[in-house]
Amino acid sequence: MAAVKYELIKTCGQTGARLGRVHTPHGSFDTPAFMPVGTQATVKGMSPAELKDVEAQIILSNTYHLYMRPGSDIVREAGGLHGFMGWDRPILTDSGGFQVFSLGGMRSIKEEGVTFKSHIDGSSHFISPERAIEIQNDLGADIIMAFDECIPYPCDYNYAKNSLERTSRWAKRCRDVHSDTERQSLFGIVQGGTFKDLRVQSANELLELDFPGYAIGGLSVGEPAAEMYDMLDVTVPLLPGDKPRYLMGVGSPDYLIEGSIRGIDMFDCVLPTRIGRNGTVMTGAGRIIIRDAKYARDYSPMDPECDCYACKNFTRSYIRHLIKAGEVLGIRLTTWHNLRFLLNLMKNVREAISEDRLGDFRNKFFSAFGYK
Amino acid sequence: MAAVKYELIKTCGQTGARLGRVHTPHGSFDTPAFMPVGTQATVKGMSPAELKDVEAQIILSNTYHLYMRPGSDIVREAGGLHGFMGWDRPILTDSGGFQVFSLGGMRSIKEEGVTFKSHIDGSSHFISPERAIEIQNDLGADIIMAFDECIPYPCDYNYAKNSLERTSRWAKRCRDVHSDTERQSLFGIVQGGTFKDLRVQSANELLELDFPGYAIGGLSVGEPAAEMYDMLDVTVPLLPGDKPRYLMGVGSPDYLIEGSIRGIDMFDCVLPTRIGRNGTVMTGAGRIIIRDAKYARDYSPMDPECDCYACKNFTRSYIRHLIKAGEVLGIRLTTWHNLRFLLNLMKNVREAISEDRLGDFRNKFFSAFGYK
Ligand SMILES: [Zn+2]
Ligand SMILES: [Zn+2]
Repeated sequence: MAAVKYELIKTCGQTGARLGRVHTPHGSFDTPAFMPVGTQATVKGMSPAELKDVEAQIILSNTYHLYMRPGSDIVREAGGLHGFMGWDRPILTDSGGFQVFSLGGMRSIKEEGVTFKSHIDGSSHFISPERAIEIQNDLGADIIMAFDECIPYPCDYNYAKNSLERTSRWAKRCRDVHSDTERQSLFGIVQGGTFKDLRVQSANELLELDFPGYAIGGLSVGEPAAEMYDMLDVTVPLLPGDKPRYLMGVGSPDYLIEGSIRGIDMFDCVLPTRIGRNGTVMTGAGRIIIRDAKYARDYSPMDPECDCYACKNFTRSYIRHLIKAGEVLGIRLTTWHNLRFLLNLMKNVREAISEDRLGDFRNKFFSAFGYK
Repeated sequence: MAAVKYELIKTCGQTGARLGRVHTPHGSFDTPAFMPVGTQATVKGMSPAELKDVEAQIILSNTYHLYMRPGSDIVREAGGLHGFMGWDRPILTDSGGFQVFSLGGMRSIKEEGVTFKSHIDGSSHFISPERAIEIQNDLGADIIMAFDECIPYPCDYNYAKNSLERTSRWAKRCRDVHSDTERQSLFGIVQGGTFKDLRVQSANELLELDFPGYAIGGLSVGEPAAEMYDMLDVTVPLLPGDKPRYLMGVGSPDYLIEGSIRGIDMFDCVLPTRIGRNGTVMTGAGRIIIRDAKYARDYSPMDPECDCYACKNFTRSYIRHLIKAGEVLGIRLTTWHNLRFLLNLMKNVREAISEDRLGDFRNKFFSAFGYK
């Protein structure tokens, strides 16, 4: 039996969004789902217990970073990522492709794989599709990703076409080398830049490989929102209804809702943790910059409607003080809240789907948050 | 009735150490007690809930830092430090004297008070004994401290003598201006450098002012341990038996035990949090540097005998990885453990006193930890 299985519960009568559940060897998670990012085997600032407190059901970690430090052999010896970081719920690892192309200096891309330099010490490394799977086998996540080429935005048509075709060939090599499919499910990644016909070509090539789940990569990289939605509109209908669909690197509230409406089941993004560390906080009424002087004597919670530990116990005034004073607790509390905010948003999205009113929810949320 | 009252429970038959309890408007704490330091209204890296988890019964915060940022008026409006930082157990604030003399640049010391420059923005400030009390009244801690002059080490006799006499005059001014003695108890601070007769003179001058508790300041500033113990041996017997005795700025395990043996009831130090941030961890078998390569594949807890969240859930290998990767969770876990280690040490000290065996405990602990 495949490690990961998608269960469709219901389709939203108003939007077509899917309410579902994904079953993995480490338990199930409800979809549409947001996955907090734990790049270095830790969601920055949060303990595993706190991730459960904000109701994270699945997290993502980055193969490239763990390969560099501490090394996948150490993670394997510790019992895989679950044992190493003390997280007993589902985990997804990316393939490292995105980091190799965005962080790896002076790379050379060949059919065989990619040679690049470590962002830590400049040492030279080679990763092939086979090696990417081997590393992810060591890490032991429930869901692992095929090694793909990530292209810049904007990118010309021929480059994008050649690249997606290589990504398809690499996806086949990944599939062929990944053996323990009952322990880990390997997802393919649809590429093709912002060209509709290339997205169709990519999806069709990957469908032939019959992956247990499909991701859509190379979006939310700087293109206008409308262009991203166009790509989803052309890609998602091609994907099989009985497998999960994962939109990579997306985590702003508008994209999460619009992606759900377009049939996406899984999302990940560093946004809630990254903006939290800069002192930016999401609330039902939009974003606030907690450092602003106007919060110096604001003794109300970050988000009055939030049920998180930070909002139940501390004021904007105190958190502003902590952030300005460079105190760790400050970024812990903003991160804690932002994660709770997005995970709660997804909970509301799922509830709206189950009640056939995700379109209404979208309009109400957008208006209150200040979108459009 | 005085805000703070000392209850003597028992004296150790083997050492003379005191087991007691200090009652405050925010509850009681057991002595001998170690107070974690929350300089900027937060014990670095720890939430109030976690401080309770490690069984902190009282914490200390720094008047100088809070006066600078966010300002004592904001803390007062938030309901004092207890409300501002969400800590409902006892708090002690220092007077700011130590920081004015160690951090404040280009200071001028006059009988009236001290003019110094902010370590944050270089702005000029003046703090007198009266102002130090006023600020501490705003902060609202259960125990507040008289504004004292802190001298360098080493220091010549005449300088130390003149300084302690000024500290005594300042202590009287503090006492005279502090009015709400039912809400906050003001402690005097014995100074006198490393001169026995000056310690006696200082103690006697302060005893005339009849404070509800006494601190011993100006020790653990670089002098040999034997010299510090000499000062305690000459000072503590002069202090009244029905009032708490607080040795300032002391927090290494040997000093905590030796101080307890010499009749000290309260201690504070940044040591457990500061060394934790550098990746140094205290265990029953001595200190370990978690960054060391030898821990890369060490899948045992930081301290196998510890019951803290960090030791129950994570390995040395994982925590080493976090520290090396610059992850916040790493310093959170080392800090968490170090605080638990010292608070548990004090619990063991109290237990040993109650069973008249603190001398035995000292010898066993010293030998296992690697002292002497
Ligand atoms: Zn919140
Ligand atoms: Zn521990």
